[in-house]
Amino acid sequence: MNEYSSKLLELAVGELSRLPGIGKKTALRLALHILKEEEVFAENLGSSIIKMRKEIVFCKKCNNISDADTCEICANHKRDENTICVVEDTRDVLAIENTAQFNGLYHVLGGIINPIEGIGPNDLFIKHLIERIHHEDIREIILALPATVEGDTTSFYIYRLVKEFGVNVTTIARGVAVGDELEYTDEITLGRSILNRLPFENSMKRS
Amino acid sequence: MNEYSSKLLELAVGELSRLPGIGKKTALRLALHILKEEEVFAENLGSSIIKMRKEIVFCKKCNNISDADTCEICANHKRDENTICVVEDTRDVLAIENTAQFNGLYHVLGGIINPIEGIGPNDLFIKHLIERIHHEDIREIILALPATVEGDTTSFYIYRLVKEFGVNVTTIARGVAVGDELEYTDEITLGRSILNRLPFENSMKRS
Repeated sequence: MNEYSSKLLELAVGELSRLPGIGKKTALRLALHILKEEEVFAENLGSSIIKMRKEIVFCKKCNNISDADTCEICANHKRDENTICVVEDTRDVLAIENTAQFNGLYHVLGGIINPIEGIGPNDLFIKHLIERIHHEDIREIILALPATVEGDTTSFYIYRLVKEFGVNVTTIARGVAVGDELEYTDEITLGRSILNRLPFENSMKRS
Repeated sequence: MNEYSSKLLELAVGELSRLPGIGKKTALRLALHILKEEEVFAENLGSSIIKMRKEIVFCKKCNNISDADTCEICANHKRDENTICVVEDTRDVLAIENTAQFNGLYHVLGGIINPIEGIGPNDLFIKHLIERIHHEDIREIILALPATVEGDTTSFYIYRLVKEFGVNVTTIARGVAVGDELEYTDEITLGRSILNRLPFENSMKRS
């Protein structure tokens, strides 16, 4: 007897547990839920996954997920085409768009340099950034990568590549999060926030 | 502009986030993972879900998930056909099978009575249990339902239904879990374990 009393169940649990953060027990719970729902539930779920993977495209310009060759942000001429914000993936685009504080364009790397996971600069959408600098009128590149060793490595790598083109390279501010108590902020963050202190009038700015 | 820069992504995230315990953020993380993988990954995942829901059957006898009309446990004549263990769902069958301490048959209710979620006795596979008592030679029914109010309600409901047939109804032991310290065990469990104390020789039994 196989572990799950049904080969079909075993197969679905196996596939679901390949997803990140989903173990065998969670996968089984999900599969049993799908079995309890109407057949149309499984059909919608399954076909939306297959259709998305098959038909989705990445914006030729910024590599963001898109339904067309050029994404809606790149195609929007009301946006500031001189400023590019470099991010790790689509989730970061969504997060920054939600702040309503940025009106430039994006450049989605599709990951960050991570030697342990075998991800090098060539696996990322970095070369295309250089091409954009050649062909577009870019004045500022904002590095908005994770505040981790891998994020800092990637930022430094891109900085070294682009500085020769005379583009202004900035990075998003690291510091005490809004609403945080100083005593609970870790030393490195607090230290950086002191080193990178700014004139009080600037801190009151709301764009 | 829609929230996700792609309708296809939005659709897949929407479907994924209907799964229990998966919110919009997790669903987006899963969708982006699927996009990073090869197309065959999405195809295997999607089609295994659809195929499972479409083709899986439930054992006519015990309601366990199965690939055939009668599941492998019910079809196995080496098992004790006089003892039936009543459980909530397939996961409990797997858990009890893993203990290798039970050699009888199962009866899978497909849920437990839960008025808050609108699940009554008629939504469960309870009537079929009475039919089994009529047609099979059942001497003992073991109630192995969750140690919750809903589980106890369901146990009591089944007990009242089946006691008139002269079947021996038992319930699995509640008590201090193996490996647990008494001081960290909750009062109700510890209280029950004292009330339901058993002769020391019995506690040493290993079937």
